[in-house]
Amino acid sequence: MTPTVKPVVNDKRLLTRLSDLAKLGATKDGGVCRLALTDNDRLGRDFLVALMQDANLHVRIDQIGNIFGIRRGQKDLPAVMTGSHPDTVRNGGKYDGAYGILAGLEVIETLNDLNIETIRPIIVCAFTNEEGARFHPDMMGSLVYAGGLELDTALSTCDANGLTLGQELKKIAYDGDMPCGDIVPRAFIEVHIEQGPILEREEIQIGVVENLQGISWQEVIFHGQANHAGTTPMQGRKDAGFCAAALAVYVRELSGEFGGNQVATIGEIELTPNVINVVPNRARITIDIRNTDNAILCLAEQQIKKKIEELAASENTTSETRVLARFDPVLFDQDIASIIEENAIALNLSHRRMTSGAGHDAQMMSRICPTAMIFVPSKDGISHNPREHTDADDLVAGANVLLHSLLTIANE
Amino acid sequence: MTPTVKPVVNDKRLLTRLSDLAKLGATKDGGVCRLALTDNDRLGRDFLVALMQDANLHVRIDQIGNIFGIRRGQKDLPAVMTGSHPDTVRNGGKYDGAYGILAGLEVIETLNDLNIETIRPIIVCAFTNEEGARFHPDMMGSLVYAGGLELDTALSTCDANGLTLGQELKKIAYDGDMPCGDIVPRAFIEVHIEQGPILEREEIQIGVVENLQGISWQEVIFHGQANHAGTTPMQGRKDAGFCAAALAVYVRELSGEFGGNQVATIGEIELTPNVINVVPNRARITIDIRNTDNAILCLAEQQIKKKIEELAASENTTSETRVLARFDPVLFDQDIASIIEENAIALNLSHRRMTSGAGHDAQMMSRICPTAMIFVPSKDGISHNPREHTDADDLVAGANVLLHSLLTIANE
Repeated sequence: MTPTVKPVVNDKRLLTRLSDLAKLGATKDGGVCRLALTDNDRLGRDFLVALMQDANLHVRIDQIGNIFGIRRGQKDLPAVMTGSHPDTVRNGGKYDGAYGILAGLEVIETLNDLNIETIRPIIVCAFTNEEGARFHPDMMGSLVYAGGLELDTALSTCDANGLTLGQELKKIAYDGDMPCGDIVPRAFIEVHIEQGPILEREEIQIGVVENLQGISWQEVIFHGQANHAGTTPMQGRKDAGFCAAALAVYVRELSGEFGGNQVATIGEIELTPNVINVVPNRARITIDIRNTDNAILCLAEQQIKKKIEELAASENTTSETRVLARFDPVLFDQDIASIIEENAIALNLSHRRMTSGAGHDAQMMSRICPTAMIFVPSKDGISHNPREHTDADDLVAGANVLLHSLLTIANE
Repeated sequence: MTPTVKPVVNDKRLLTRLSDLAKLGATKDGGVCRLALTDNDRLGRDFLVALMQDANLHVRIDQIGNIFGIRRGQKDLPAVMTGSHPDTVRNGGKYDGAYGILAGLEVIETLNDLNIETIRPIIVCAFTNEEGARFHPDMMGSLVYAGGLELDTALSTCDANGLTLGQELKKIAYDGDMPCGDIVPRAFIEVHIEQGPILEREEIQIGVVENLQGISWQEVIFHGQANHAGTTPMQGRKDAGFCAAALAVYVRELSGEFGGNQVATIGEIELTPNVINVVPNRARITIDIRNTDNAILCLAEQQIKKKIEELAASENTTSETRVLARFDPVLFDQDIASIIEENAIALNLSHRRMTSGAGHDAQMMSRICPTAMIFVPSKDGISHNPREHTDADDLVAGANVLLHSLLTIANE
């Protein structure tokens, strides 16, 4: 079954398809906008399903809209699965998500071209709403598939305009009938751009992702009192905006204190009424902290909670906190990571073990099967941005590591 | 000429008119929205002009839209002037500005009722765009009148929708032909709500305003780099949002350091793209600092400038700073303040000398004639808010102090 000449993917076909998919939802500034379950998302999905059918895959769609393209194996054993997501953020790039699906399809095409059969089936999947840019939480399709979120809860989630995910799924005709979680694979491997600067900085082509940071997202709202900026003495103020700013600075300091893998980001601050000469009576701030060590993540959360209380007490404001997302750190399967590593070595590609700072569908799939990921470099570490870029050589290298890693497992 | 029985204003008429004017542009929550040069502003202006005409005042309108209602004096001497502004902030209260004009008109009506003539003319005026909520800078009508801003510059100022003040002035038919600054008064007195908590806290009815804080408004924009919150190590970040938050905290600390009259407010913070898991690449923040001592104000400005540079250097961001408004502290005329004080004493009203923390049209008028102000208490110090409130007794007391102070000067 193992071929005598090492098969490699068709680089031209892979790059052309990446470029073709990026045209669907293309923005003026070279970016891509395929928010989950919009007409643009449907265009992307239709493109992928057509490719799957052309490659003779059996296409199934589950109740949350995840798409599965199944290539038969010689034996009726659990399949090895790969894939990623077709949706993007509002002004995203060409590779985030798209690359993982098209690299998986390229593996299938390569096997088809070379008439290579595998013992286990191979499945390429496209998960619904990974970005969470329109419907919360993110990684929703894989989360529901892995049993981490009730289907009904997910379907009744509303976007900012009050449209439910269920309605929108029906509208784009991706409300399938396959029960979520119906296929439990032998293993799952996702190839993805790094979205960070490490591989590029170290001039390494392949990241063997062995774990994934835990993520804690919260929203904090301080309520104070609006007052005239000129006539209100400093000591009488209830300045919600000051509380938000002081909390933002504290969270940054905290990340330095814990050091290592801890990252902390204040992405959103909104003041009300947001007028130059009015003390803000309301301030909303979001906190994103991540760590590979759950104990440190919990400790950071506790210290932030304490700080919020201190600030509210000293400024005479009140506060409310809402958890927007919370995922424990994930340790990927060491055997799968080793298989990826060995294949990178066999292909003579520079590689390193690493941690994923971002959440991925693989994180959810690791709940139900042995999982690991392959990363390729991101230019300047930029992602979620039209300037997102990965060199063609790296895209091809990642697809070849995926090809051989899937082959290794599929021929077990 | 001096009446034997001390005249007092008609409290019912004053309060009814305040209530009637507040209906023009009334908001659902009990506030008032008469943004400068909108249709609501025109309604307020028309109401005031009608009252002026009913009171037999000669009405003139200047080229920036300031309205003057002139009551003839026995002699052709420089007039004594009073007044304030009819415009409000987006969701303001019933008294800010409106009270000063209607109290002035009430003085006129009282003199008319009692057939009291004065040696000098008395003028009640309504200044254009004091709030600066739609067109910058604030106090624009009085500033142009006093020669502090070119008429053409003011007329070509744009609002957020790109409409010029000149167009809008024409549209509401208040583009008058009187040259700005045509009448140079003997003195100017403005009565206004305090908009701060001091008089209420000390249970005093009349504030004799002898000076006014200097105001420094600036906008700072930090430019950094948008990056993924999970995958970008802390040390590689160019976080514009962190710079803004750290600057906000610094400005607050600085106000404590200088103490006394120094107040400092961060009213606006805006992050771009303002997404929970993206390091902000742009952050805009406004700084409002005020002090009665210009040297301290300058020192604070210098220290803020230094801090901006330090933050940009340490975070690898760039910054740009724009002065939005800068007014030196104003020392009002001590003789006019004494006249107000003596009349408060003669009327048996509790009073104190005080500083205005807010800018007022009187600040601009003090450039061209002896000027001082009368303050009345603001409940809970709240202003620029539908809950803005002053007790009827205090409104009437302020109008009576205005009546007698104007009489004193008008009969010189």
